[in-house]
Order: sequence, then structure tokens, then C-alpha cells
Amino acid sequence: MKVERLKINYRTLEEFKKFHEHGLEELSMYEDLRANLVEDSSSSPFYGVYEDGKLVARMSLYPIDARFDRYFSPPRDHFELWKLEVLPGYKGRGFGRALVQYGQSLGEPIKTNVRYGAQDFFTKLGFEPVKYDPNRDRGENPYVWIPATEDQSYEPTR
Amino acid sequence: MKVERLKINYRTLEEFKKFHEHGLEELSMYEDLRANLVEDSSSSPFYGVYEDGKLVARMSLYPIDARFDRYFSPPRDHFELWKLEVLPGYKGRGFGRALVQYGQSLGEPIKTNVRYGAQDFFTKLGFEPVKYDPNRDRGENPYVWIPATEDQSYEPTR
Repeated sequence: MKVERLKINYRTLEEFKKFHEHGLEELSMYEDLRANLVEDSSSSPFYGVYEDGKLVARMSLYPIDARFDRYFSPPRDHFELWKLEVLPGYKGRGFGRALVQYGQSLGEPIKTNVRYGAQDFFTKLGFEPVKYDPNRDRGENPYVWIPATEDQSYEPTR
Repeated sequence: MKVERLKINYRTLEEFKKFHEHGLEELSMYEDLRANLVEDSSSSPFYGVYEDGKLVARMSLYPIDARFDRYFSPPRDHFELWKLEVLPGYKGRGFGRALVQYGQSLGEPIKTNVRYGAQDFFTKLGFEPVKYDPNRDRGENPYVWIPATEDQSYEPTR
């Protein structure tokens, strides 16, 4: 199972249409391509797994600069993980886990918003719920992961 | 159909358990109640509709101070709408619409993150998609609504 960083091009965007979480972000990517605002081969925040030439799982990882960090103390560079999704018919085969573990291999902490039903999946991968802050979280379910080898002074704010 | 602001108490939190989007926020409310950090009758960000004594629909509205506004230009106080949800068996009867319209009656603009499949619901209520900004939106689908009677200089950033 090979996780790869997805290039922004028409072929990738066609594959994205099969995914449930398809919205303004993908529309905006189409517009950027049409307006030649991006190179066909630009890298994107998306990572995915192909099987037999078909994109069957994807996630996005947005690098967050420490200046905008609201989850770690002291503030630090990290990734926000969104849009983790495995196509129907491909679930239960480890595609989602492979994607998250790939993100974890990049060496930075990760924050994600865990959907109902996915808590166990993320806690098995070492994520922990943060202490809920109504002003910051506004209904989200933030979970964070920090690399195990790190200095213990980097504790999530909880 | 009467929309009411929900009080934070054990009864309300028990009703919340029937809803799909149930997570850290609700757990935190329980903890606050147990620790006597809130009055039983405290008001909450939640609004809901009861039928025959049962909570059948809810949403949350978080007041955002203009200082933290990232969606309107010039920045202004507004609401973020989250967790709009109607229980199975009660869909298609206008509960969701009544909740959003109640929010619109409060006189401030509203920003929400529209889920896949709910675009038509929100555009019929006057919401419009914003121009997607990858650094701000990170995979969200932000839609905004501004009161129709307002000075036209308050345009959403798009």
C-alpha cells in the first residue's frame, strides 16, 4: 500500500468527485487550473492511495505555522488533518490507517477534528482528545497527536 | 413550531445523546455541571425544537466577536452556526429551516460550514458560498448569510 502526495491536475480532480467531502475547496482548485494559476503538477495538501489506477482513499494535511497554533503549548508548527475518507467497498482494509501513519511519519504533531464514530480509530493511532474550549473549539472534537520521541515538555494544551 | 434556547442541565444533555454530532463539547458540559461550574439554568449556544416533550432538532450558534472575524469585510460581530441536526423520523418537516430562520431573526450575519448535500438547503435560505481561501478554510465549505436590510457596504469577503 503506497501513500503518495497527490498532484493538482484535472485527473486528480476527477477522482476527487467520487468522495463525499467534495466542496468549495475542489471547485476552487478547478478554477485555479482553468485560470492557469497553478502548474498541472503543483503539489497539493492531499495525500492518497491508488489501487489498480483508481484513487480509493485520501486525506488532506494543512501545515499550520506556530504563529497560528491554538492547540499546543508552547505554540509550534504542526499539521491539521482533514478529509480523511476511504471509498465505499475499500473500507476495513487499512487504507485510512496507512494515510494517518504516513502523516505521522512527517515528524510534526497533528491536530484533527474527530467525527462521531471515529474516536477509537484515532485513539488507537495515539491521538488524544484535548480539553474542550468553547471559545476555540465551537462544536469541534479536536484530537491531537505528538511524536512519541519528543521532549516531554511539548505537551498538548489540555 | 417553537424554537427555544436550550438550558444546560442534565435533562438537556440526556436529550443530546440521541444526536449524531455528540462529542467533546457535550462531555465538557457534563463535567461543568458535575463540578458545579455552571448553574443548572445556564443558557447555552444550543437552540432546539421540542415535540411532545422530546428534543427533535437542534443547532448551536456561537457569537463571534468582530476582532476574531475572518469572513466579513469590514470585520463584524456574527454567529457561527454548527451542529444543525434533525433526528431521524423528523426530517422533511421544516425543523431545520425553522432553526436557521430563528438564527437569522437575531439580526447578525451567520457563517456556517456546509456539509455535502446541504448546499441547496442553505442557498434557499439566502446563504452564499465564500471565495475559498486555502489558508483560512482548510477543507471547510464556508457559506455566509447577511441580513437583507443591511447597508450594501457590508459585503462578505468573496
